[in-house]
Formats: sequence, C-alpha cells, structure tokens
Amino acid sequence: MNSSQTDAPLPLAFALEAEDGLGRAGCLTLRRGRVYTPAFMPVGTAGSIKGVSSAELVADGAEIMLANTYHLMVRMGAETIARLGGLHSLNRWTKPILTDSGGFQVMSLAKLRTLNEEGVVFASHLDGKKFLLTPESAIEAQILLGAEVAMQLDECMALPAEREAVEAACLRSLRWAERARRAWQADSRVSESTGYGLFAIVQGGTDTRLRQESAETLVAQNFAGYAIGGLAVGEGQAAMLETLEATVPFLPAHKPRYLMGVGTPSDLVASVCRGVDLFDCVLPTRSGRTALAFVGCGTINLRNARHKDDLRPLDETCGCVACGAGYSRAWLHHLFRAGEILGAVLLTRHNLFHYQRLIRTLRRAICSKQLAAFATAFAAGEQQGERGAEVFPELPEL
Amino acid sequence: MNSSQTDAPLPLAFALEAEDGLGRAGCLTLRRGRVYTPAFMPVGTAGSIKGVSSAELVADGAEIMLANTYHLMVRMGAETIARLGGLHSLNRWTKPILTDSGGFQVMSLAKLRTLNEEGVVFASHLDGKKFLLTPESAIEAQILLGAEVAMQLDECMALPAEREAVEAACLRSLRWAERARRAWQADSRVSESTGYGLFAIVQGGTDTRLRQESAETLVAQNFAGYAIGGLAVGEGQAAMLETLEATVPFLPAHKPRYLMGVGTPSDLVASVCRGVDLFDCVLPTRSGRTALAFVGCGTINLRNARHKDDLRPLDETCGCVACGAGYSRAWLHHLFRAGEILGAVLLTRHNLFHYQRLIRTLRRAICSKQLAAFATAFAAGEQQGERGAEVFPELPEL
Repeated sequence: MNSSQTDAPLPLAFALEAEDGLGRAGCLTLRRGRVYTPAFMPVGTAGSIKGVSSAELVADGAEIMLANTYHLMVRMGAETIARLGGLHSLNRWTKPILTDSGGFQVMSLAKLRTLNEEGVVFASHLDGKKFLLTPESAIEAQILLGAEVAMQLDECMALPAEREAVEAACLRSLRWAERARRAWQADSRVSESTGYGLFAIVQGGTDTRLRQESAETLVAQNFAGYAIGGLAVGEGQAAMLETLEATVPFLPAHKPRYLMGVGTPSDLVASVCRGVDLFDCVLPTRSGRTALAFVGCGTINLRNARHKDDLRPLDETCGCVACGAGYSRAWLHHLFRAGEILGAVLLTRHNLFHYQRLIRTLRRAICSKQLAAFATAFAAGEQQGERGAEVFPELPEL
Repeated sequence: MNSSQTDAPLPLAFALEAEDGLGRAGCLTLRRGRVYTPAFMPVGTAGSIKGVSSAELVADGAEIMLANTYHLMVRMGAETIARLGGLHSLNRWTKPILTDSGGFQVMSLAKLRTLNEEGVVFASHLDGKKFLLTPESAIEAQILLGAEVAMQLDECMALPAEREAVEAACLRSLRWAERARRAWQADSRVSESTGYGLFAIVQGGTDTRLRQESAETLVAQNFAGYAIGGLAVGEGQAAMLETLEATVPFLPAHKPRYLMGVGTPSDLVASVCRGVDLFDCVLPTRSGRTALAFVGCGTINLRNARHKDDLRPLDETCGCVACGAGYSRAWLHHLFRAGEILGAVLLTRHNLFHYQRLIRTLRRAICSKQLAAFATAFAAGEQQGERGAEVFPELPEL
C-alpha cells in the first residue's frame, strides 16, 4: 500500500468524468490500478482467462478481471491461495480483480444445496465435498483471494419465477447484504486499507417495485458500489432493459453500477445508455472457443464453409493479435476444422479485444456527447443481414 | 526473391562455421532466412504449432518449422493452399519451412494403403478419400505448399522388421529419391530460384551395410541435404546412435544432416556429438499438452500433487514466457487440474524454449570446443534422481 498518498484508509474512489444522457464515463481507483468506465471485465472462472496469459490480457486492453470464488474454493481453496501469496501473485495479474461471492455458481452448478437464513450448504460439482457459504464466509474467502472488489452473497433466481419466490430471495439478499457489510467493516485487512470495496447486489427479478425497494435499502447502507444482479437469466433483453430503467434512478450517481453477467455487444451498448458502468460476461471467451467471432456489429461462425477461401482478416480495422498478424478467415476456419487450439486462442483474443474496443468507443462517445448517435448506428448495424453488419461503426470526427 | 544477390539461381547454401569432434556448427541459408545449426524444428502438423502463434514461435527462438504434407493434403489440400498464397502467407510464419513428404504419415496413419513401385494410394484418416502419393506428386505438393526444404518420398518401416523387408524398402526409397530429384530439377519454381533445396533420406533400419549403401547412392546424386530416416521408431537409443555412427561418415561434410523425428534432449545431445545438424520432434509440444515439462536435464509432471504448493517457476534460469512471467509450478498444477488450456499453452512454450536453449547451448559448446564436456555434464544430470536433475548445465565461462 502506498501510504504516502493518504494517512487515513479510504475505500475505493470513483470519479465521474463525463455524462451524456444517462451514460457515464468515470474512473474507479482501486488498490492495484485505475479502471476507466464504462469497463468490461473478462471472466477468469478458475482465476485465469481461458487460453490467455495475464500479460496478453493486459495487451488486449483489460484493466480489471473477474474471478469466480466458487471455482477457486472447490479447486485450490481460498486458504491455500492466501497461503501461497494470493490470487494476484499466482495468476500474475497485477491489475485489480473483482470476485463474485460464489452465490451464482452455488445456484447454477452445485449438485446438492440446502439454503436457509444462515447461508448455503453446497456440494462441490467436482467431488461432492461439502462447503458452507454464508454472507460472512463469502467475504472471508474473497479477502483471502485478494480481491479489490468483493461482492455480497445473494440469492439469485432463474427467471421466470413465482413472485413470492423472487420477493423472498430479494429480501433474504438484503439481509445478507447487511451481514456482508458488517463482516467487511470488521475486517481490518480491507476496511483499514485504501482501494478495496464491497459491492451490494440489487435483486427483485423484473418486479420494478421490488427493485426499487432493494436499491433504496442497499443505498441507505452506503456500499462502495451497486450491482444489478439476477438479470440476463432468461427474461429477454427488453425486460432486462426495462428493469434497468426502473432500477438505475434509485442508485447514487457517485457510485459505480455493475450489471452482472451481461452480455452481448448489444446489451453493453443499451445498458451503457441506461447508466451502467461495469460489465462481466463469458461470452467473448466462450464464443472464441466455439468459433464464434464478434466482427463489427455482428458475428461470424468460423466453422462455416463459406470462410474456407476467404483471405480477409476477421476485421480489417481491428488491432487484435489475430487481425494484426494477418491471420485470415480461411486459416482460422482451417484451424477450427483441424481441432487446433490456436484457433480458439486467437479467436478468444480477438473477441476480448473487440469487447474492449466497443466499451472504449462507448466511453469516447460519452466524452464527446455522441452516445445516442453511436448507439443508433450500432443498433442499425446489428439489423443488417443475418448476423449483423461486419463493419464497426466508428465515431464521426468531431 | 532478391535477384540482386546473384544472377544465376543457387540452391540453398550451407556453411560450416566450427567443428568440435564430430559436432558441427553451421549456417543454412534459405529463401526466407538463415538457420543456425545445430537447429531444432518445431512440428506444425496441420501447418501450425499447436497452441502457439507464429510470432510467439519466433519469440521462443525457432528459425525454421516443419509442416506435415500429409495433414495439409487431407485437410485444406496443397492446391488450395497454393491458390490462397501458400503456407507462409496463411500461417503467418515468415521464416523457412521444411515439409516432410507425407510418407511417414501414410505409413503410420492411413486406414488403407496400397504400395507399389509407382507410389502409395492411401485413404484419408478423416474421411476415407483416396489420394495417390508418388515421388513426383510429393514434390509437387511440397512446392505448392511453398516449402524451402522438401523431402523425398521414402518408405519408412517400424522396427524391428525382417531384414528382407528393410532392404526392399531401402532400395525402393533409393529409386524414389532419384525420381524425386528429377521432378525437383524439372520444376523451375524451385530449380531456378535461390534458397530452395531437396533432401534425400537415408534408410536401412539398423543394418549398417544397408545404411552405407543408401548413403553412398544418395550422395552420388548430389542432394542439397541428407536426412537419416527410419530411426526412433522402436529400436532404442543405443541402436539409434550406433546406426548414426555407421551412417554419418558416408555423408558429405559440406551438406546439412537431418535426423528425422528425433527426439529427447538426451537424443539431441548425443546426436549432435555424432555430427547431426537438424532435428524435428513433436515431443516438446505434445509433452506440453500432457503436463510434462522439460526442466534442466530432466522432466517434471505438473499433474503430480507434489507441485501443488511449489511457488518456484519451472526453471529459475529459464527465460521463457511462463518462467519469465513468474508462473509457479503450483499455479501450472492448478491450471492442468482445472483443465485450463492456458496450462498446455504455457508448458508448450516453455518446452519449445527449453529445446531451443539446449540446441543453442550445444552450438555455443561446439564454437568454444566444450561439446564433450557439456555432453558429459548433461548425461550426468540426466542420471540424477528419478527424472533427472532440474538444473540446466551451463557452459563454463571461457
């Protein structure tokens, strides 16, 4: 810690730099670096982005990564990672890390779980070993990992769900937020250090009254940032955006807003226009492994035979390592057909670069008051052809 | 082609720079660059080193790569590759490429094959499609791919085999060498260009008389280089080295000598001491994908639980991208256990770097007359412990 900067420990700092409509450009200052927002966080499920080294991830433009607490707990274990120097020391990522609380994977992956007010008992999807995850132990695990940004444990539901169930999960998540906050504040490793923060998670499904109630209750507790959870879980983009519109007005302007697990390029553009600052999603990395490339406003599938003689790069205007080196669609098609992992690696890196390029273009658009124009151009590009226009809409020169 | 260098087309040039015992340091000048020998060629089965981009392969020290004609024939096809600009243009490798003739895979992989004096009819291991490979069509395919160094079609046998079969294959390979040479010389794309060459392959199993006869017959035909084929196919290291000792004296001093498909670090050291200049092997890349790392004079298996808390890099003295970035054995163990492809990629790059480091150390040893001392130190290191000493034997300061 650089103690010369300040004598008293401060939580993370978030400065708004520009606004355009509801869109915001900001800067989040964390223990291990600055994150210019809007920002996209690549997902390192097991503490590592699939197929991409930390140096490469920096080269591709990421300023923060996400790691999954659940996967690290059931693999190495948070205590072991702490004993070996923490996640940053092990995965050689020197910039900030945000960890989820483990709650989402407990819901989606674990073979057995019993949930009560205390927390969740779950069985590892690997070996059945039982773990107890409480709001307090989720904080402890994330501090052991060394995350700059920790998330509260919440109860996440797949949609559609009964209103009563959504409300019960929402209210439970609020009680767990309070316990998470107390555990965080009681822990001097983070509460007395600069540049660490705990984010609460607004829940409530697509019920706007529940979302408002959840947001207001959490805001009153003064968290370092606010996530909007429980979306992109089956409700569709229109319902997601409506819920976002009904939630964001109840979040404070001077705190970062994080839309969890989202999404497609279209989701990013629309959500930035609605005031979201942070995103994470497996889509660019997972798609890279399944031959789907994000190009311009659309996608192309490199397994498709129509690429077999196509000597163009994925995107003439892209500066990623694959396009920059001149790998053609024809060769990438060959690599996927031949089962060569280099195809997956190159496409993963292209997709990560494309996401960073999109989010930075959105930031520049906000700073130059062109967000609405860019969003319109992007949406129009998405509607072209079967899979969207392969041309990336550049911002007009000012 | 740089026609200003010479008016008349020249074949590849090979200059001997130093000798130490039978060991040689040289420089092979090819159409797309110089290869300092002894040299190790990473294997790009489908025209691409598994998990490693061409820029990364350069960074890891390779000056020439090998591509498998058979795999490229049954996948994209040599004609398609030529139409799309050649292999160099597609795989973005700007340095020399050596292609095999396809003969080895026809023997080891094809489901069906019929071999007669004309050539081999084989069925693709992918879809059963039939191909005819003759000494002439193997040359045509390699020229279409754009290889700087092409190999004659030969008949390779697994050992042990009946003497009569070995002799028949050896004599057939000699007749095919003559046909390959005529096809090569008749093709102005290579015979009238500078920096391309055709290598013949000495066969004869472990029969020293056959090896001598094969070598003498081929040398009389004045090929650009001579490969020693049909070794490391089950005969064991001692028999391989004896065969090498019985063959090398019949090869001309001023031409490069290439030991095909070899081998372990131990094989490289012993063979360089016996006068070999060029090697290729899948061992460093294949081992990288199966968690086996070459470290010092030995190997370590990263899947082994003994590495789970080991914060040391694979090799403290290694400058590869994995060791240089500080990835620990503990984290690599975690990556392999979690099925993360980054583990395979990092270990592949470490192993390729290790092989280049070994071959360059052998070159320096020859230039400084320390080859025998280094070979002794390396062999002693290999005998230490279960899997060899993890310390790389540096050359003494002069």
